[in-house]
Amino acid sequence: MEIAITLDNQSELPLHRQLYEELRRSILSGRLAPGQRVPSTRTLAVSLGVSRATVTQSYEQLLSEGYFQAVTGSGTFVGRHLPDDLLRPATVKAAAGVARAARPSVRLSNYGASLADVEAFEPSGQESQINFCYGRPAFDAFPLQQWRRLLLRHCRTGQRAMLDYALDSLGYEPLREAIAHHLARSRAVVCQADQVIIVSGSQQALDLITRVLVERGETVAMEDPGYLGARRAFLAQGAKLLPVPVDEAGMMVEYLAARQTAKPKLIHVTPSHQFPTGAVLSLPRRLELLAWAAQSGAMIVEDDYDSEYRYGSRPIPALQGLDQSESVIYVGTFSKMMFPALRLGYMVVPRSVAHVLARAKWLADRHAPMLEQYALADFINEGHLERHLRRMRTLYDQRRQALVRALKLHFGERVTIMGESAGMHLTARLQTKLSDEEIIRRAEEAGVGLVSARVYFLKSCWNNEYIFGYASLSERRIQEGVRRLAGLPI
Amino acid sequence: MEIAITLDNQSELPLHRQLYEELRRSILSGRLAPGQRVPSTRTLAVSLGVSRATVTQSYEQLLSEGYFQAVTGSGTFVGRHLPDDLLRPATVKAAAGVARAARPSVRLSNYGASLADVEAFEPSGQESQINFCYGRPAFDAFPLQQWRRLLLRHCRTGQRAMLDYALDSLGYEPLREAIAHHLARSRAVVCQADQVIIVSGSQQALDLITRVLVERGETVAMEDPGYLGARRAFLAQGAKLLPVPVDEAGMMVEYLAARQTAKPKLIHVTPSHQFPTGAVLSLPRRLELLAWAAQSGAMIVEDDYDSEYRYGSRPIPALQGLDQSESVIYVGTFSKMMFPALRLGYMVVPRSVAHVLARAKWLADRHAPMLEQYALADFINEGHLERHLRRMRTLYDQRRQALVRALKLHFGERVTIMGESAGMHLTARLQTKLSDEEIIRRAEEAGVGLVSARVYFLKSCWNNEYIFGYASLSERRIQEGVRRLAGLPI
Repeated sequence: MEIAITLDNQSELPLHRQLYEELRRSILSGRLAPGQRVPSTRTLAVSLGVSRATVTQSYEQLLSEGYFQAVTGSGTFVGRHLPDDLLRPATVKAAAGVARAARPSVRLSNYGASLADVEAFEPSGQESQINFCYGRPAFDAFPLQQWRRLLLRHCRTGQRAMLDYALDSLGYEPLREAIAHHLARSRAVVCQADQVIIVSGSQQALDLITRVLVERGETVAMEDPGYLGARRAFLAQGAKLLPVPVDEAGMMVEYLAARQTAKPKLIHVTPSHQFPTGAVLSLPRRLELLAWAAQSGAMIVEDDYDSEYRYGSRPIPALQGLDQSESVIYVGTFSKMMFPALRLGYMVVPRSVAHVLARAKWLADRHAPMLEQYALADFINEGHLERHLRRMRTLYDQRRQALVRALKLHFGERVTIMGESAGMHLTARLQTKLSDEEIIRRAEEAGVGLVSARVYFLKSCWNNEYIFGYASLSERRIQEGVRRLAGLPI
Repeated sequence: MEIAITLDNQSELPLHRQLYEELRRSILSGRLAPGQRVPSTRTLAVSLGVSRATVTQSYEQLLSEGYFQAVTGSGTFVGRHLPDDLLRPATVKAAAGVARAARPSVRLSNYGASLADVEAFEPSGQESQINFCYGRPAFDAFPLQQWRRLLLRHCRTGQRAMLDYALDSLGYEPLREAIAHHLARSRAVVCQADQVIIVSGSQQALDLITRVLVERGETVAMEDPGYLGARRAFLAQGAKLLPVPVDEAGMMVEYLAARQTAKPKLIHVTPSHQFPTGAVLSLPRRLELLAWAAQSGAMIVEDDYDSEYRYGSRPIPALQGLDQSESVIYVGTFSKMMFPALRLGYMVVPRSVAHVLARAKWLADRHAPMLEQYALADFINEGHLERHLRRMRTLYDQRRQALVRALKLHFGERVTIMGESAGMHLTARLQTKLSDEEIIRRAEEAGVGLVSARVYFLKSCWNNEYIFGYASLSERRIQEGVRRLAGLPI
């Protein structure tokens, strides 16, 4: 190989870098042809009078960037397929050919337009030191080592089924079986594995169900106040909302029967711990709701988002388990049982709509990542989930009690606590003259993150009610947070 | 505690199991009240005259199932929150209250109905011994250990951000930056990280783009033949399809200009390796397509599904890099660069639609699992992806050549090979009198999985063309597969 390489010992640029540049340039300029053999590091080091390490370093750089290719046994060659950087100039030239046209602005679909409108719904940050944001589990109490062990186990085997596309649009079968079994035991849900569809969290379940069942302009009934993630999914897809008021026994089902004209296609309900009030839907109302759905043909979406956590009172079985007429789609998530970033949830669906929903999932994103599905199946089958839930039930109960004590201690008569018999948050009504915005602002200043229940209302609206998530906060921080709130002029 | 426990030494049931049953029964029957203290294993062992191990074993069982609760320091108690199995009877009784109504059958939305119609689109199985199915990478060549190491790294830290909801609906920022950087280098894509949206594979990208841009009844242009996953997403959402024929230079763009009346809202194209023909869209046509989109206001979806693999010929830069008028949404996936079960992909979007598409993703399923996003960012930034792709480029090239040689050796004049200059599959036209169905059936009998190009056609349709995926098959299996085909009476 004959290329003049000049290295400058005075240069700021280290020798190996200079050599790299020189060689790269000769390749780009074509002086070194693709496939051409280059001298060994020793030969070049000698001929250039530099250390072999210098040459090796520059060669490695060129190898890693694909300018060079090493062929074991026969040496180093200029790469046959050079990095595409080479194309950059070409790109620019070609681009110049296209006139920068005054392009007509993009017309969005109704769906797209509805998203462009809504107030930004970015996830709520965790800026404040003590954040009572809801829906967060106790991250530090999650058995991460156990979980890691299971991920490893399946990552190690590297079996093709764990890397390839799923063979089953419902989800990994052993996981579906484990979930069916767990739900039967813990929630009295009655189902077979072939009714369980694995989704990426309950939000996807709500989205898919709406797509498959609700046409633009049709009515969806939901609790007022109710879950925002559901409301947004319904509205974005053009559903008309029928707000159903909530009292201490949950959704006021009689209200539905009274509005026969509305004929909702879908009824979204959170029976085990109404969001956000925390009310538990009474058994009579559950039966009333099921009977009404059965005769009206409406489908019930039972969003059982934090049903695993109940304190003292015995749980009421899931609507799904009471249903006799295939009127319930049961939706659950592992975001709270495990952790949100896992992005795994499930729906338990009537056989009449199972295949359509499975296809909707397949068409939306094929399936959930396999590794997590494998690991989670083991996590459940080996009893880790049960154990973890039992531990969390105790831990959350303690934190809940600490919160209730602190609120009563610091606010006494001025606070009314609701929905503390279950779940991971409670609602507290504070007697104050200030607006919700003002209180939240002042709390923020004191380093306390607080959420007003207001935003969850559709029609009716109460003031000065706040959602206190306690699951992810230690008792000390809970006490400190409430103390700070009480210290404010509110 | 006074409960009469009778153990039968003659019984088939081991003693610890008998004891477990006895204690469980007394809890269920209420003889043992929730919260009641139970004797220590030693005490009970003595009083029953059995080994302490026996008692311990039954206690552990009851503890693990939640019938017992251990309070460190103060002993073992009957659980306060008993497993919900207890509710089963209650459940059944309540359920009986609901009449098994003759429920009106479920009315699906247009979207749902379209899914109910289509021929089942389950993933194609890997039953045949030698399967030339396309879109599968070389599973055994993936650096699984490296990947495991990175998963472990982040699983170990257990930092909250890795467990909690994402703070960013676009996806994990370091991953978006890594992707932007990689695409700039390898595909001459011009973008910033804030234009990259992480999705669960390219299917989700296609689904979200259609939802946000295309209204029912509007037109989507796509290659004929073209990618089925895209076609299904478009059709299910009520789009009218405008099939654009394909020749050896890819999509015949002039055909679009000729059909001005159709006014497609979206144009789906696979320029770097047309699916399934494998044609590469010529530079003139790329510029023509961009110019046409710019003036018509149509949005181009550049589906660059296997652009990383090119043999011999220098790659043509991505449409996105040539675009001057925000007319291109670039879609890519890691299903082929890494492995399909990872379920990670990306879109590079014009800023004009970035926030709407990010919200659509957020509303569809929040975000992709965090662990994989963290690990993948490192995988790219530490150069593992580059190295892996370089290795695969060589490996696939060898397998491609082996397939071409085998086809020519065994079929000689009777085979025409197309689209072998890039990607992970090629198309071969066989001269035969038999129908595609018949050939596929006979191949199947010989243990060879083959896919006809027929199903990918909308209007025009050629026979006896087959897609040969070679990336996941060893040279030996490729040769064996072709040999078996040639051995058939076809």
